[in-house]
Amino acid sequence: MDPLQRPRGTRDFSPEENDRRRWALARLEETVARFGYREVATPTFEDLELFTRKSGEGVRKQLYEFTDKGGRALTLRPELTAPTMRYYFSELAQRPKPLKLYYFGNCFRYEEPQSGRYREFFQFGVELLGADTPEANAEVVAVAVACLKALGLSGFKLRVGHIGILKGVIGRLIPDVSARTAVYGTIDKKMAGLATTLSTAGVRNQTAIFLEAFAGTTFAAVLQADNWKVRLQDDINGLVKALESDYGDAAMPAIDDVQRAYADLRKMIGSLKPYGLDEFEIDYGVVRGLDYYSGMVFEVHHPELGAESQICGGGAYTLHELFGAKPTGSIGFAIGFDRTLLALEREGHMPALAPSPLKAVVVPVTDDAREEAVRLATQLRRAGVACDVDLMQRNLRKCLDYANALGIPFAVLLGAKEMASGQATVKDLRSGLQETLERAMVAARILAG
Amino acid sequence: MDPLQRPRGTRDFSPEENDRRRWALARLEETVARFGYREVATPTFEDLELFTRKSGEGVRKQLYEFTDKGGRALTLRPELTAPTMRYYFSELAQRPKPLKLYYFGNCFRYEEPQSGRYREFFQFGVELLGADTPEANAEVVAVAVACLKALGLSGFKLRVGHIGILKGVIGRLIPDVSARTAVYGTIDKKMAGLATTLSTAGVRNQTAIFLEAFAGTTFAAVLQADNWKVRLQDDINGLVKALESDYGDAAMPAIDDVQRAYADLRKMIGSLKPYGLDEFEIDYGVVRGLDYYSGMVFEVHHPELGAESQICGGGAYTLHELFGAKPTGSIGFAIGFDRTLLALEREGHMPALAPSPLKAVVVPVTDDAREEAVRLATQLRRAGVACDVDLMQRNLRKCLDYANALGIPFAVLLGAKEMASGQATVKDLRSGLQETLERAMVAARILAG
Repeated sequence: MDPLQRPRGTRDFSPEENDRRRWALARLEETVARFGYREVATPTFEDLELFTRKSGEGVRKQLYEFTDKGGRALTLRPELTAPTMRYYFSELAQRPKPLKLYYFGNCFRYEEPQSGRYREFFQFGVELLGADTPEANAEVVAVAVACLKALGLSGFKLRVGHIGILKGVIGRLIPDVSARTAVYGTIDKKMAGLATTLSTAGVRNQTAIFLEAFAGTTFAAVLQADNWKVRLQDDINGLVKALESDYGDAAMPAIDDVQRAYADLRKMIGSLKPYGLDEFEIDYGVVRGLDYYSGMVFEVHHPELGAESQICGGGAYTLHELFGAKPTGSIGFAIGFDRTLLALEREGHMPALAPSPLKAVVVPVTDDAREEAVRLATQLRRAGVACDVDLMQRNLRKCLDYANALGIPFAVLLGAKEMASGQATVKDLRSGLQETLERAMVAARILAG
Repeated sequence: MDPLQRPRGTRDFSPEENDRRRWALARLEETVARFGYREVATPTFEDLELFTRKSGEGVRKQLYEFTDKGGRALTLRPELTAPTMRYYFSELAQRPKPLKLYYFGNCFRYEEPQSGRYREFFQFGVELLGADTPEANAEVVAVAVACLKALGLSGFKLRVGHIGILKGVIGRLIPDVSARTAVYGTIDKKMAGLATTLSTAGVRNQTAIFLEAFAGTTFAAVLQADNWKVRLQDDINGLVKALESDYGDAAMPAIDDVQRAYADLRKMIGSLKPYGLDEFEIDYGVVRGLDYYSGMVFEVHHPELGAESQICGGGAYTLHELFGAKPTGSIGFAIGFDRTLLALEREGHMPALAPSPLKAVVVPVTDDAREEAVRLATQLRRAGVACDVDLMQRNLRKCLDYANALGIPFAVLLGAKEMASGQATVKDLRSGLQETLERAMVAARILAG
């Protein structure tokens, strides 16, 4: 028989990896809790339709879909925003607004595994629901940055945009859905030849050329300076001018959309200032799979990660139609937990963690001390001392080897002398020093280090 | 379009439910960490064969099995011991022994949902690997009990047995596998008519009658007294006598197995004493799905749960054959996390938890204080105060309504006066009292309660 193996693209996590993951998750949870976000959790699988109804059948090629024994079309979840919104609209919509939720969970995509990309991967994210102000948008961006900083990460790059600018123009000028999808795809993947794609879709000359440059524009915004305001205004003016010259008065609806999105983005960026965010990039070409997003959008990339550099993405989105509900302000982000930890390691900022939780091993030096050793270990555990006791009927030497292999700092010895006196000998395995104490004093001695 | 719903038999967890679950998980993790157990995690799906190779094709009817887009036969995991052992044998087997591991994860079974039974459910468990002494067996039982007690649970019943006693007799006397399986099924489900089933399988008269009574025997062991030793010895003597009278010398191999298992169980029970376990039941009929188990077995039941009363089960098992590995001592248990929390609620011992993590809401009373309000909220969060700031451009009254609806104890007000003086007014929403402070003092005031 073949030895049984782990499925391709998945991982097992060792105690050491789990320590690091728990440490990182605790930092993220602590950070969002300070902003008032609270945890929700949803099932690992959902109705297939939850993901195909908005994104179309095309998403199925990346899904782990299956039919259960009752004939239901289900899928392992590929992301957590749609499930969270399903839950929100069915049970949480009556709660006071804004409602601040966070999640941490595994997601599944059938993709070719590579560095930082797994078939089962983990996302940490927040959703801010019931608010759609610039201040609310700014908070979500600030929370994402605060999360990454809380991990000690420093080399990441934030890019902010607004999907309404390009969507306004393209939505008004290209009536055909599949032509639009092709255009969005070109922008999303930052592919060359956008002007040609736009021309093919019927967009006129100056507008097509301007949009290619516009969608590729990225510039640094320094919040304390006002440079970004001037630049943003100039770029929008340029876009409006191209539209007017190509379309005249017929451009008005598109121009209105652009101006609205521009005003929204400008206010949102202004609202970032009191969070102490100094510098980031404005990128008009951030469109992030347009299925969900409808307003401000942002991405965080880490240059150390190479081709798969994105560690966080988010923005304002609409999903209420899926649930037959009324529109509600919805803004969120998801951090790619695995890739973020990889970035932290590459930066060399992953903290060193203790090799074992154990502080002591209790060793019965003689066989008749075995029961007493377990009794003492039980007392120590109740007093908060993580400790092991020999379970393998080993001699003193082997017990000390085990303690040293695990990096356990203390051994507590119960030999004939200690059994007679009712005491115990505490040996510091780092210094080799030892002292004999009343048993009731052992816990305090070990907790003192 | 139909509104999209949660799949049958699964759950969404609210912030309040997650608080309770996190609280309980933290107690369990803290408890096992004191014994030196460390966390491992494995993928959500595994090769189907990991579960069918030992348990047979019959288990498939309860599995969420599927074929991935690469044609692999996979299944959502129904339990976590086999995956943990797959991981152990592939990557952890060289670590110092004993190796102490724990896991917390979701598992999946296609069963009819009912109270305390879900299609996606959660298990917390430990595996103690590389040791097979009575002391090691006793520790695992003691850890299970310590976990349940750490949650504040008190009404549960522990039942301990040894699968080797019945397995020894039945394995020797019933050569036919399917006849054996029928017998084990009758024992496992505590069904009537065991003697008849045994007779049909060819077991002789006295032995069959004795085994029916024996498998149904449960008695209270009080560790401080010696009652259990006498009773255990008597019952085993009775079994041996029945075997001898039915089979004569031909019973010797079965009797040897029984005596070995008996000695093992007796030592294990003796080793429980120093853990402070006072009273539990000895139940010869605990057989726990015989696929894995090979030695000591135990179950914990909670009478408040009715028909689905089991909250924990475990014992010594063998799985090495699955991985082409050498035998290794393996002892573990799994706690049904969902059912255990249900038992805790029924006992009325679930602690009351804070309604919101938020300690304060910062309110800009005038519009020009908005930016300063976010700045102050940012300072407070850095100082460890979980706080919200108005994101909805609401007036003072509405902000205070929001704070009261969430049970937030403090409001921090920035009005015209505070903007001019550089101060802030802290209002205790419980007492209505308020005081105006330097902004740098606000965090300390709130943290003081």
